This record gives sequence, C-alpha cells and structure tokens, in this order.
Amino acid sequence: MELNIALLPGDGIGPEVVDQAVKVVDAVAEKFGHQIKWASGLTGAAAIDAVGDPYPESTHKICMAADAVLFGAIGHPRYDNDPKAPVRPEQGLLKMRKKLGLFANVRPTFTFPSLIDNSPLKRERIEGTDLIILRELTGGIYFGERGRKDNGDTAFDTCTYTREEVKRLAKLGFEMAMNRRKKLCCVDKANVLESSRLWRETVQDMETDFPEVEVSYEFVDAVAMRLVQWPSSYDVLITENLFGDILTDEASVISGSMGLMPSASIGVHTSLFEPIHGSYPQAAGKDIANPLATVLSAAMMLEDAFDLKDEASLIRAVTNQSLAEGIVTEDLAGKSKAYKTSEVGDWLAAQVR
Amino acid sequence: MELNIALLPGDGIGPEVVDQAVKVVDAVAEKFGHQIKWASGLTGAAAIDAVGDPYPESTHKICMAADAVLFGAIGHPRYDNDPKAPVRPEQGLLKMRKKLGLFANVRPTFTFPSLIDNSPLKRERIEGTDLIILRELTGGIYFGERGRKDNGDTAFDTCTYTREEVKRLAKLGFEMAMNRRKKLCCVDKANVLESSRLWRETVQDMETDFPEVEVSYEFVDAVAMRLVQWPSSYDVLITENLFGDILTDEASVISGSMGLMPSASIGVHTSLFEPIHGSYPQAAGKDIANPLATVLSAAMMLEDAFDLKDEASLIRAVTNQSLAEGIVTEDLAGKSKAYKTSEVGDWLAAQVR
Ligand SMILES: CC(C)[C@H](C(=O)O)[C@@H](O)C(=O)O
Ligand SMILES: CC(C)[C@H](C(=O)O)[C@@H](O)C(=O)O
Repeated sequence: MELNIALLPGDGIGPEVVDQAVKVVDAVAEKFGHQIKWASGLTGAAAIDAVGDPYPESTHKICMAADAVLFGAIGHPRYDNDPKAPVRPEQGLLKMRKKLGLFANVRPTFTFPSLIDNSPLKRERIEGTDLIILRELTGGIYFGERGRKDNGDTAFDTCTYTREEVKRLAKLGFEMAMNRRKKLCCVDKANVLESSRLWRETVQDMETDFPEVEVSYEFVDAVAMRLVQWPSSYDVLITENLFGDILTDEASVISGSMGLMPSASIGVHTSLFEPIHGSYPQAAGKDIANPLATVLSAAMMLEDAFDLKDEASLIRAVTNQSLAEGIVTEDLAGKSKAYKTSEVGDWLAAQVR
Repeated sequence: MELNIALLPGDGIGPEVVDQAVKVVDAVAEKFGHQIKWASGLTGAAAIDAVGDPYPESTHKICMAADAVLFGAIGHPRYDNDPKAPVRPEQGLLKMRKKLGLFANVRPTFTFPSLIDNSPLKRERIEGTDLIILRELTGGIYFGERGRKDNGDTAFDTCTYTREEVKRLAKLGFEMAMNRRKKLCCVDKANVLESSRLWRETVQDMETDFPEVEVSYEFVDAVAMRLVQWPSSYDVLITENLFGDILTDEASVISGSMGLMPSASIGVHTSLFEPIHGSYPQAAGKDIANPLATVLSAAMMLEDAFDLKDEASLIRAVTNQSLAEGIVTEDLAGKSKAYKTSEVGDWLAAQVR
C-alpha cells in the first residue's frame, strides 16, 4: 500500500519527537511492504520565522495532498505573555484546523500499569480508566465573531453552533461508544447557555438512532469534578470546543502518563495525528524529550486513517516493551539509566524489524 | 452590635444546614452580646412552587434591607435534564447575583489535616494547599446576549467584559494577595479570546499599583492541569465567570473536604455567604447532611461582612473540635458513630456557650 503522509514537525521538541515516529513508521512499512511518501511542511513559530505565516499556503497544499498528517507541536516562548503580538503560532493551529476541516479532536485517556504511580491521583481512583473525550474543534467561541467596542474598553467573543455541527460531532461520539462500552456523556452548560441547550436537544434527538447507547447529560462544572474523583466511570464524552480544551487537558494529567498520550483530529479533508504534549521549549534540541506520545500518535494514524490494524498493534507492542524494559527518556527513567530521544526511536525501530 | 441577616435556605438540604448555622450564630451572638435579626426569604424551586419565581421581589427586598445574606443551596431534580423548562431554579440564582450586584465569588480551597486522606489526590500533592479562586460573577457569557437563528438551528451566546468589570474584580484579587502570600494568577485564554486579552491587558496595567504582588498569567487549560498536579503552588487566582465556574468546582474536590468548603459572594449592595455544595436532594429531609460548610460560611460572614474576627475564630475552633472529636455526620464518620445534622448543630452551639 502507498501511504502519503504530511509531516509537520512544528516548534520546540516537535522535530525531535516526529523524527522518532518517522523511524518507527518506516520500519513498520518495510516489514509489511508499504511505500511511504513523507512530505514536510512548516508550521508555528518556525513558519513565522521563515515566511511570516504560522500556517502558510504551501503547508496547506501539502496537507491537502496527503492521506493523513503527522504533527509535532507548536508554540514558542517568544510569543508567551504577549497577547498583542500581531502573528502568533497558535493562529496557525486554528487556521490549520479550520482549513482542513478538523472538526473532531479525539483524546483518549488511559493508564499504563507500569506508570500508574506517577499520577497525582491515588491508584484506586484511576485504575481501569479508559475514556475518550471528543472535542468539537472548528466551531464555538474559538471561531465566532469577536472584537472591541467603546474605544477598546469593551471586548466580546461569540459562541455559535449549528445543529449540523453538533450532529456531526455527536454521530462520531455515538459510533465510538458503540465500539466501546456503549456509554456517552454529553457535557454542556445547558442550565445557562443557549448553545448548550442546542447541543443537548440535538443529542437527545439522536438517542433513538443508537438505542443501545446509554446517554447521560452532565454540566461542565460537574464533569470537571468527576474527572478527578472517578475518571473510570466515563467511557466517551462529547463536548464543544472550549469545554473540550479545558477538560482534555485536565484529563491528561490523571493517568500519570501525559507524555505518552496520543490524539487524533478527524477532518473533512484529511485527518491529523499529534501528541497531546506541547512544544516544551526548555527541552528543545537536547535530545531528551519523550517520543512515545508521537510514536503512539503514528500508531493511531496507521489504524484510523489507513485501517492498518496489525501495523498499529506492532507499534503499541514495541512501545509497551520499551516501557517494560526501561528503554525510556529521563522523564520516566526514575533512578535508572535515561535514554536519549533518538536512542528510544532507534530501539523501537530495531524492535519492529 | 445589631446584625441584620437575610436567610435564604433554598431547596433540598438547604433548610437543614442553614438551621444549624443559625443555632451556632445565635449562640455566638449571645456570648458576645450581639443582637441578631434574621429575615427569611424564599428562593429556588421552593419559591417557584410558592410564587412562580425563583427569586421573587419580596426576597430581593429582604436581601437589600439586610447587612448580609446567608444562603443554603438551590436546585431540584424536577428541573434536571429539562433545558426547556420555562422557569428554572438556577435562573433565580443568576437573577439574585445580578440584582444584588454580587460581582465577586470568593472560593477558598484548603485542607483539613484530619481529612486529607479523603482526597482523590495523593497526600504529598495537596499538603499545604491554601488557595482562593476569585470568580467574576455578574458578567461574561452568563449575562451576554444569547438566542437562536435559522428557525432554531443556530444558537449563540456572547461573552462581554468591560475594563471596569475586570478592574473591580482584579483589585479585590490584588488586595487579597497582599494579605496572603502575595501571588496572583490571572487565568484566561488570551491566545484565543478577545475578552481574555482585555482581562490580561487590564491586569498588566494594574501591576504597578501593587508592586509587591508577583503576578502570573496562565491559560485556563493549563490551570485545569496544574490545579490537579500542584494545587499548593497557587495563592490567589482571578478569572472570568465561566472559567471560574469550572475551576472552582474542580478545585473543590482536591482538598477531600468538599462538604466543608464555605464561600462568599461580594456585592455592590450586600454580600452573600453559602456552602459550595449543592442542594443534594437525595438527602433532603433526612437529617444526615453535613452542616459544617454552612457553619463555616457563617463564620466567613461574621468576619468579612461584620468584621467580627473573634466570633468567626470561635466558630472555626468549635468546628475543628467537632472534627477532632468525631462529632460528624455520616459522610465523615467512617466506621465510627454518625451524628445527625441537627445533633452536630446542637453540639457546636453548646460548645460555643
Ligand atoms: C494553543 C491553543 C489555541 C490550543 C487550543 O486552545 O485549542 C491548545 O490549547 C490546544 O488544546 O490544542
Ligand atoms: C447553577 C449554575 C447556574 C451555577 C453557575 O454556573 O454559576 C452553579 O454551577 C454555581 O457555580 O454556582
């Protein structure tokens, strides 16, 4: 099979961790007889520096021509604490999401038995946690009208949703739940927001199409509590863009394995796979960043975008093996030997072969 | 001193827990020679049932005439999962906040040494946690324009903030920080939202007026993570209404003592004190609910609204004593004897005397 993959390393540790995923995917392709064509594009601060645009048209063309996109991370400290900077790396992210129609961000949270004690939560609270948050990614207050009035003294943002946007996201959620434990939680603030009432209404109307799925409706503030109290009680959660931003990050710390969590963004034109961690600028260029989240994102890509289940399983197996044998970067090494980012990548690729 | 206090018991367990706070405050007043005038008003589902309005004008008059308001909880299961109900108890809450000008919700999170092991978080993560979230309570998307278009298929909500609203809240935050560990964190989403950029700008402009306060700016998603990872690293956090709703609830579960956490809402016309827990309808009328959060809210009221520091300290002392001696309701009793709500109130009042 021929796989056309766009590669967007981005900023900070992005390029280093993406490199390891490429090594591993190349090894898998060799073993299974696939042809991979990688096409690299600039994004984020790196793209601002090169061409003044965090998501340039040239990069967009590369993504549109590809079957899937593998993404590192973007963000640079130069732009932090400067809300007035005219062009910011994050704008590239939002532009990319919109132009590629990446309407659903899929964020699994699960535990690795060997890492469970890294969690800030007690073991008995998180054991068995295996949930997915499905975040709407191209609507809501992120993309609504915004601006200033009264000489800049009043600022406003608008959260808008259409029934079709909610349906599209919710349908994915119902389908995922059907392939899992058949529980769906719609997270909203329907006691206050009109857009949330539209969400709740729409999901309620869809219940009859998925009679086997047990649907619950919870307010976002209650979910923010229960995610810490009883994360294992959730299966699939669906929610709008801003709530999803907050809850996915909150959920990411409960497993104790944030450096390992992959994610997917499912789109109209293509889909994109990326580690959930950021660009971690302090570690950039030091060959110390943990590449496993990116490697696992590549596994998600092979499975979801190309239906290559065995290939994905093999990547997950060698990843687990690296954890079991302690071939890990300093964040997980504890008192044992810490391997370099590139060494972990080489080891995983060798195991695949 | 004469204290005019409006009493809004509300729904569910509200009346029972408020009763205990009244007992304790009456005992304190007797001991210190104060005159208390309690004036009760209806709110929530109880008020909808009686007069069709969850915050009737008669109740508003009582609050306006009082020096402070002691509030129980509102909410009734009859209204859950029914986003289309024409009148909902929560509307009373929002109306009350707006009409009383309760612009700042003060939510402390701290640990009780004897209860720390109830937390879902590991002891070493939460020890020493003592933070306050200051949530803007009368602006933002809770009170902006909202509605439907396209025959109901499009819904929108608007988040609006003025510089004055931000200043008023931030000023309180700076002042609180000055009386504490002098750290202030402004929580926003300035990388996306215009209203957040106004927040950040305004707080940045105020930094020179409080040179001793160390100010940090963090995105709401990052704070949702760090609250679980390192809650003790925070002192005072200020944020807008919706972010505050989510973060205060998230923070409330980390101490392991949610049933004990008081809160204050500071207003233009008066101020209001209430436990952070809800109306807990399943327990209503059973004399089993934990009254300590309401009793501690009354202590906050004596201190903040009436400057009665010794009186407040006495209430806190007897509360700690009840915890130490195990005079507690079933939620805290473990394998020991559980006391009734009313028995705990009686015991506290007797200790005060
Ligand atoms: C960088 C920022 C715009 C972005 C978001 O809020 O969507 C990030 O937090 C994320 O979750 O991918
Ligand atoms: C009931 C609801 C409207 C309310 C809010 O969101 O403000 C509640 O969650 C709270 O935090 O007091």
